[in-house]
Order: sequence, then C-alpha cells, then structure tokens
Amino acid sequence: MKIYFAGSIRGGREDQELYLEFIKILSNFGTVLTEHIGDKSLSNVGETIVSDSYIYERDMQWVRESDVVVAEVSTPSLGVGYEIGQAQSMNKSVLCLRRTTAEKKLSAMLVGNAYIKVAEYSTINDVADILRKFLNTI
Amino acid sequence: MKIYFAGSIRGGREDQELYLEFIKILSNFGTVLTEHIGDKSLSNVGETIVSDSYIYERDMQWVRESDVVVAEVSTPSLGVGYEIGQAQSMNKSVLCLRRTTAEKKLSAMLVGNAYIKVAEYSTINDVADILRKFLNTI
Repeated sequence: MKIYFAGSIRGGREDQELYLEFIKILSNFGTVLTEHIGDKSLSNVGETIVSDSYIYERDMQWVRESDVVVAEVSTPSLGVGYEIGQAQSMNKSVLCLRRTTAEKKLSAMLVGNAYIKVAEYSTINDVADILRKFLNTI
Repeated sequence: MKIYFAGSIRGGREDQELYLEFIKILSNFGTVLTEHIGDKSLSNVGETIVSDSYIYERDMQWVRESDVVVAEVSTPSLGVGYEIGQAQSMNKSVLCLRRTTAEKKLSAMLVGNAYIKVAEYSTINDVADILRKFLNTI
C-alpha cells in the first residue's frame, strides 16, 4: 500500500514529533511516500534544496500514486487543505486526524464533508488504533 | 460574474477587516457569493446557526457556480487550501493574494503551482490594481 501522509510544514512545525510517530505507525502498513514530513531538520521554511514547483509536481504525483491519504490536521495549513481537496477529486480515501487538545476548531470543509473521515485522538495509542481500523478497510 | 472569495475563518480572523475591503472591491466586478467572510460578527468559531455539513454543501455549490475564485492566503487555513484544491479540479480560475508582511512562507502547493496565480500586496490600492487586472482577463 502506498500512503500519502500530510502534515503542516510552512503552517508551523509544532507537531513535527507527532508526525514522526504517525509515519512510524503508517510504515507498518505500507510505503509512506512523504517521510520528510516527520524530519526534525525540516523547519517551517520548508525544503530549500529543491524549488517550489519541483515540490508541487512531486507531491501531486505522490498523491496520484497513493492508495490512501492520511492527514494530521491539528495545525491550520493551506498545503494540507489543498492536498485533501485534490485527493478527494482523485477519489482517494482520505482520513484526517486531529488532537483533542488542538487549539482551533476544524474547518467545516473537512468536518462537514461526508467524503472524508475525521477522527480525534488523545494519545499515540489512539492513533495506532484509528489507523489500523481505517487502513484495514482499504 | 460570480466570484467565490475565500478567507480564513476557523484558522484565525486577524485579517477580517482586509477581507471586507476585498469584498467591497470585488463587488464592483460581479456578485460575491461569500460575503459573510468579511462579517465582523463572524468569529473563528465559524457559523453557528447552520451545521457543518450545510456549510460544506453550500460552499462547494458556490465554488461550482463561480466563474472565479479569489483567495486571501496570508493566514494558514485548511478550508481555504481545500477550496483552492477543489476549485482547481473544477478548472476554475484561481487568484491568491498575500500580504507582503504575512508571517508565514506560502505553501509550495500554491506558490509552486503553475495553475494558480499568486500575487503579493502591500496596500489596499495594490489589491484593487491586482484584482482589476486579473478579473478583466476572465
């Protein structure tokens, strides 16, 4: 299974360690195409060695290739929102996860969207349970 | 011309007064479907009288109806990113505007995306110029 994991980069890296935990769990189910999202050395400036148009084309190719898109949506992010909007238009399965302690209310474009599954979690054990249940249906 | 204006709600309302200025300018060119984005009484909790699924269905219907999508992207927002991703999949013309003083670097999904036009502005006069030039090409 090819998994596109989406998390905030330029929107803010406060949850980077959580993203890394997500990627570790997701790796048990298949290939995570976007392992760099969990990289500690990746700041909110984003990737600097490659151009923005390279990043865009590469990431959209990964979304097209993927069997499923899993997004951590606790931090508002234009890129993550965009990727979800595109993934839906490509009929990909989309799961959004949000910390119960997230500061901001989740967008109606996600939480009011019957196409997308949204789940909340408190602990990384919850994440493991939610991901296992979801990915076993793919 | 039907114009879908996108701005942050649950991502943060710091730019609400700017959104109102955008809507005033856009109203000279056509019907702004999303006038509530500029509403001072709309907080970052979002609309409370209608359900999230109502908001989602209504807003997506407006994107489908629109001739053009104009997004203010200075504040990271999952909803605005989602709307841009969907608008692109519907082959809508999309213009993103960003304050030169915006705190966060813009996502590569927007700035690296050849389909989308991105412009920066310092003053509301810049906004008027950018919008006029763009909308006259629609």
